[in-house]
Amino acid sequence: MSESDGSASDKDTQEVIMEATFRALSEHGYKDLRMRHIGEEMELTRQVIHYHYDGKYDLLSSFLEYVIEQYEGSVEVAADADPRTELDARIDQCLFGPEFEEFTHWDRMRVYHELYAYAQNDDRHREVFNEHYARIRGSIVEVIEAGIERGTFREVDAERMGQLITDLIHAARGRRIALGHEDAPEETRRAIDEFVLDSLRTDG
Amino acid sequence: MSESDGSASDKDTQEVIMEATFRALSEHGYKDLRMRHIGEEMELTRQVIHYHYDGKYDLLSSFLEYVIEQYEGSVEVAADADPRTELDARIDQCLFGPEFEEFTHWDRMRVYHELYAYAQNDDRHREVFNEHYARIRGSIVEVIEAGIERGTFREVDAERMGQLITDLIHAARGRRIALGHEDAPEETRRAIDEFVLDSLRTDG
Repeated sequence: MSESDGSASDKDTQEVIMEATFRALSEHGYKDLRMRHIGEEMELTRQVIHYHYDGKYDLLSSFLEYVIEQYEGSVEVAADADPRTELDARIDQCLFGPEFEEFTHWDRMRVYHELYAYAQNDDRHREVFNEHYARIRGSIVEVIEAGIERGTFREVDAERMGQLITDLIHAARGRRIALGHEDAPEETRRAIDEFVLDSLRTDG
Repeated sequence: MSESDGSASDKDTQEVIMEATFRALSEHGYKDLRMRHIGEEMELTRQVIHYHYDGKYDLLSSFLEYVIEQYEGSVEVAADADPRTELDARIDQCLFGPEFEEFTHWDRMRVYHELYAYAQNDDRHREVFNEHYARIRGSIVEVIEAGIERGTFREVDAERMGQLITDLIHAARGRRIALGHEDAPEETRRAIDEFVLDSLRTDG
């Protein structure tokens, strides 16, 4: 992103551009996307895009960060919630998403997974995804560790289990999008409970 | 695929075309691939391709089937192997692949995962992937059921566990390819053992 003074109106403008990018991507797909498609989806002049972003690539990297940000920090659980409740809330957030005014969780995830598939050829996107993965996994690992410390979870390699859960979430979303398995998130939720989380309990 | 008499030489020709497709895809990627790129990668004339396939799309669907076939039926375990040994062999096959003369398991998986990402827009590819998924999951489910029947595995929903393992395999391969996590397959192998398969044992 180009330099700006970070004012409220700049933020609004950037959000307008980001949502226009969503519409343009939904219509044209990643590979065929042109800057003018984004311009066609908003009421501001195209020059505004060029003022804020150094070309399509810079814009798409910022867009990816924008999509990811919407999934972070929005999990709300009571401060005194037990680790299992918090773990459930975090997994649900990733699988089923928060509510959005425009574009559903699945519209957003379709774009996210399309960019993920291209990340092998794209160092900057790869880096953004790697950071996001590390944060998602980290937030799950943290709760598992808290549960172990409190004695409500048995001793496990929390990093390894956090990675396993993160992978299951990703695979379920990808399978719903790529193969049309509408029930993949719900089924995966049950499988995580039954085969992974239930075995964590020290009381059973 | 167009009609042919299924003779040995036809099969050889098709294999030459398939391997040329591999080379062309590795060089140009799926979206930019042209029929002439495939022609450039083989010593036969391009007319041979047009004789066997009705255009790029038909060829790529056959190619996807060709890649998938290489992963099927090649797991070898002793006829009297216990279910856990057979399960391990099947999972290893999917994660680490059989050995190939040309193009490694990961070259092949890179193409497989690229086509998977496009399957959302492509009914025929989606169908091929769905069938492949059902077979992979089915072969894992079958072994879990055999183990339950023999009493070496505890009673679980075998379909659900088979899906969970299939998803973990897919996510680990995808993560290695997209994000460069070289250790993802080995780490996933350990996580499957530790958090999923070990809990199946009735003797522990």
